[in-house]
Amino acid sequence: MRIAIVVEYDGTEYCGWQIQPNGNTVQAELERAVEKVTGERTPVTGSGRTDAGVHALGQVAHFDTDFSIPPENFAFALNAVLPKDIKVIKSERAKDGFHARFSAKKKTYAYKFYVSDVPRPLKDRYFARVPYPLDFSAMKKAAEYFVGEHDFRCFLASNSSVKDTIRTVYSATIGKDGEDYVFTVSGNGFLYNMVRIMVGTLIKAGTGKITAEEVGKIIESGDRSLAGITMPPQGLTLISVEYTD
Amino acid sequence: MRIAIVVEYDGTEYCGWQIQPNGNTVQAELERAVEKVTGERTPVTGSGRTDAGVHALGQVAHFDTDFSIPPENFAFALNAVLPKDIKVIKSERAKDGFHARFSAKKKTYAYKFYVSDVPRPLKDRYFARVPYPLDFSAMKKAAEYFVGEHDFRCFLASNSSVKDTIRTVYSATIGKDGEDYVFTVSGNGFLYNMVRIMVGTLIKAGTGKITAEEVGKIIESGDRSLAGITMPPQGLTLISVEYTD
Repeated sequence: MRIAIVVEYDGTEYCGWQIQPNGNTVQAELERAVEKVTGERTPVTGSGRTDAGVHALGQVAHFDTDFSIPPENFAFALNAVLPKDIKVIKSERAKDGFHARFSAKKKTYAYKFYVSDVPRPLKDRYFARVPYPLDFSAMKKAAEYFVGEHDFRCFLASNSSVKDTIRTVYSATIGKDGEDYVFTVSGNGFLYNMVRIMVGTLIKAGTGKITAEEVGKIIESGDRSLAGITMPPQGLTLISVEYTD
Repeated sequence: MRIAIVVEYDGTEYCGWQIQPNGNTVQAELERAVEKVTGERTPVTGSGRTDAGVHALGQVAHFDTDFSIPPENFAFALNAVLPKDIKVIKSERAKDGFHARFSAKKKTYAYKFYVSDVPRPLKDRYFARVPYPLDFSAMKKAAEYFVGEHDFRCFLASNSSVKDTIRTVYSATIGKDGEDYVFTVSGNGFLYNMVRIMVGTLIKAGTGKITAEEVGKIIESGDRSLAGITMPPQGLTLISVEYTD
């Protein structure tokens, strides 16, 4: 029986999603929890990796088991043995052929940051800080250039060896509430560091180093060095993963 | 010269505000920081204590120093040596006769909690969790009974020896956004654990164990055993302290 789970985690203390030889990861914690509950060691496959320090509100994963409890009860059973910064929000029996990674159709990420010359301890766990003023309307315009099917290699971490860098972004919007900003982006998939570099590029537009229009040209150029910096991980949260039902 | 500071802190890792023989406190960190910056050991006096695990967005404190830098620069100097979960948002020269505790006229606290049968890792640092449904309109009505000058001994931690338990609450409101609730209360002062017990009492009304009207009777009775539980600390934040200018 294949079980699908929705997982929420605070990534602060983890070396990301994927199991690593050194350092604790979310996937390792989940596999340990499944083993404690079922007595079997089985892989827990996620919709994709998240980096060290990145959070998730709705990561989706699956695992196969013959342990016979009602599928919806895995959430409670796993939560009893999971650490407090990783919890299963929901568990259910997966449809035939479901695969957390290959069946995913759409992912949504949010990146939060705030503008302040002073660090704010009550924000710093889930927001990045930008210590200079930003032109919000320039950033709103710049974000529109992300939408559509593009070769996004300009937003790919320079140490990545991924070959296919074409992705479709369905929506990309930025909102503002006082000094707090949130960039929300949905697409059929994202390259390594893509969202964090997108935000670094928006901030470049927000400080007037580039115009909103130049964001379109940077994407066309495919040149990582023209895009903005890779923003820090703590502002990023995987909001949801959607599947055709 | 007396310097007044506004301090924001994430209280998760601290044994509260006040210096203690065992365990680290916010006051101890501030006194260490002042000593590092000025070379002098001097007390840092807060508007009042916050308990272990309680946060502050706008705690106010003062200290006396002869160290001659522009008063507004103490924020930057102290922040350079403070840990990342305690930062000085603002520093300025205090008016003659200013005392962070004795001059305080009004304090505002917020208490945040969410209703969910599953723990939510991205909330648990700053919210308490209530695992059963709540009647919001009953809680709204119940909160109105807090307003006014009352003897609040029913909301005083039972191990406290405070004599004067009369306080004035200026406003007490509860808001709701989806599964998230925030109780905001302003008054001329608060007893030990008072806000956390107020929220425990509101939740008693929200689950129908008492009527909203009975909250008024509980206050009149002065009986701690009739009020609700002391809610956990992480939901509580000292929002602001106000002074007559």
